[in-house]
Amino acid sequence: MKRCRNGETWDFESEMPAVSRNGGVILGLDGGTTSTICVCIPAALHSSGRLPDHPLPILARAVAGCSNHNSVGETAARETIEKVMAQALSKAHSSRSAVRAVCLAISGVNHSTDQQRILDWLRNIFPSHVEIFVENDAVAALASGTMGKIHGCVLIAGTGTIAYGFTEDGREARAAGAGPVLGDWGSGYGIAAQALTAVVRAHDGRGPQTLLTHNILNELGLSSPDELIGWTYTDSSWARIARLVPVVVSSAEAGDEVANKILHDSVLELAASVEAVVRRLRLCGEDGKDPFPLVMVGGVLEANKGWDIGKSVIDRITKICPGAHPIRPKVEPAVGAALLAWNYVIGELGDLVADH
Amino acid sequence: MKRCRNGETWDFESEMPAVSRNGGVILGLDGGTTSTICVCIPAALHSSGRLPDHPLPILARAVAGCSNHNSVGETAARETIEKVMAQALSKAHSSRSAVRAVCLAISGVNHSTDQQRILDWLRNIFPSHVEIFVENDAVAALASGTMGKIHGCVLIAGTGTIAYGFTEDGREARAAGAGPVLGDWGSGYGIAAQALTAVVRAHDGRGPQTLLTHNILNELGLSSPDELIGWTYTDSSWARIARLVPVVVSSAEAGDEVANKILHDSVLELAASVEAVVRRLRLCGEDGKDPFPLVMVGGVLEANKGWDIGKSVIDRITKICPGAHPIRPKVEPAVGAALLAWNYVIGELGDLVADH
Repeated sequence: MKRCRNGETWDFESEMPAVSRNGGVILGLDGGTTSTICVCIPAALHSSGRLPDHPLPILARAVAGCSNHNSVGETAARETIEKVMAQALSKAHSSRSAVRAVCLAISGVNHSTDQQRILDWLRNIFPSHVEIFVENDAVAALASGTMGKIHGCVLIAGTGTIAYGFTEDGREARAAGAGPVLGDWGSGYGIAAQALTAVVRAHDGRGPQTLLTHNILNELGLSSPDELIGWTYTDSSWARIARLVPVVVSSAEAGDEVANKILHDSVLELAASVEAVVRRLRLCGEDGKDPFPLVMVGGVLEANKGWDIGKSVIDRITKICPGAHPIRPKVEPAVGAALLAWNYVIGELGDLVADH
Repeated sequence: MKRCRNGETWDFESEMPAVSRNGGVILGLDGGTTSTICVCIPAALHSSGRLPDHPLPILARAVAGCSNHNSVGETAARETIEKVMAQALSKAHSSRSAVRAVCLAISGVNHSTDQQRILDWLRNIFPSHVEIFVENDAVAALASGTMGKIHGCVLIAGTGTIAYGFTEDGREARAAGAGPVLGDWGSGYGIAAQALTAVVRAHDGRGPQTLLTHNILNELGLSSPDELIGWTYTDSSWARIARLVPVVVSSAEAGDEVANKILHDSVLELAASVEAVVRRLRLCGEDGKDPFPLVMVGGVLEANKGWDIGKSVIDRITKICPGAHPIRPKVEPAVGAALLAWNYVIGELGDLVADH
């Protein structure tokens, strides 16, 4: 993983002065397609050499809208990020001058060029002694399950989906995460778009009748499938479409075959992403049994009473990789981002393992 | 088919005065996602009682960009339409005051509310004696194959796709045409988006290797599949993505299995749209053998030496409906729109049959 650290080399780290509990703060930011969350934690070394993890000392938390530059454009994305960081600092009764490190984990950051562009921009906000990390949001999600350690595979499925994996020796691989045009079919957007499509197909005679017609029209307050076209293209936000996922789940739970097939297909898609990453990184070792954390994040993977997409994905993966250790994180990705920065700047997390 | 005719009833037609060859002009406009074309023909009754069809007397033709309001917004769509009509009149050395009738056939017009909105707006441009028809672009495409007669089924597959059918007694049905989010997978956009997806999947380990990777990157001047994400979301124009269809066709012709599967699937999708329309309207009668025109329009359906998507669709349809009479129109949809207006305003096309 390429770490953008203000052009400093790794050797500079050991020369960093130890900081006291009052030695400033660290910002962790998780920027997704649906929302952007920023948390502020103390940049302090606990007497144990670790951050206390029961509970984690979260000083403040602020929330804003979408900061994926592919989705809302670069200017809007930057404004959102700047505003949410300022809010978190203000809520923590802190200020920019107290910031020791920032980890921005943002969806849509796929290249070193993306990273560098954001880094150059952040340099206008924070003075040069502040450590800045710019990562894909998947990295923060992984860190939220491993308490900052970058090893294993994370599967995110919210509005979008991505699988991202890291070996302990620093190799990485990803699958999916290319947005709705480029085949993120297991995502919330993908599930909902297929459900909307199924309604259109039932209506025009290309597909079987489905409960989704009544349930989606009812949810949207529309009277005919014809009106779905206008509804869909009025607003191009992917998150708006993805919000229909619970209707698909409840339709499947009510026995609708079309909705069930959509959810089954999404499980196959999501599992295929994890499998591709695990295979390329050999995360489960030569014998297929090596243990590794499999962190599951995002609304699509959250447990439902009936249809549990996350559990179905885990069942499929653990059949192939019995060493996969599923984790549903207890802290949010923004905290993962903060822990990642804390880990590199302040301490060595080493044996600090995930609480799961 | 609901015809928006300035609130006049059908009875008014017979009271229309006959017009001389110098009796003005008719505008036919075909507004698609890729381009908008306007033609100007004379509003004249030929001595035979028909328009001469060898050759059709096209006075002028003008071309502009996208006029689908779902794609570029209503203001931009209207500006485009107004400009292209003015250009056509100017090229024909005619003027607004000479216009007898206008047929606007525009993609994205799916409702009587869409029709009425456009009609209200056009009323500010043309005086009240001008007959105005507002139709889905599929209607003009059908008319381009039948020389103005509204009977049969038309399949359009360009950037988008739609199948639209009409019975001789005025019933109509459509399938697909709901845009890329709502499952127009057989369209040019659908084919190209699946090809881009196949490249991403081959790259991240979810799918098989494919010639599409080299061929698409080469076409776009990119060096890695990672760059496809940026390329895809830089510009949300569906037409821009659809322009990759020839690369998919040439990759399939070179024997690539992934590209071949994408094209085969698109044939199934396109044929399913036609089948749904034909079944709902019973266009092939009780015994399945009734004759009806099947008009094939759009870049995706144009004949290629090797992989001919249009021919594959026709082969599939004629197996089920032996009475389907495939027509690849010799005039463009904008001329179809003009002929439709001519038909209703000036003459009875009656026995004027398509030249195919």
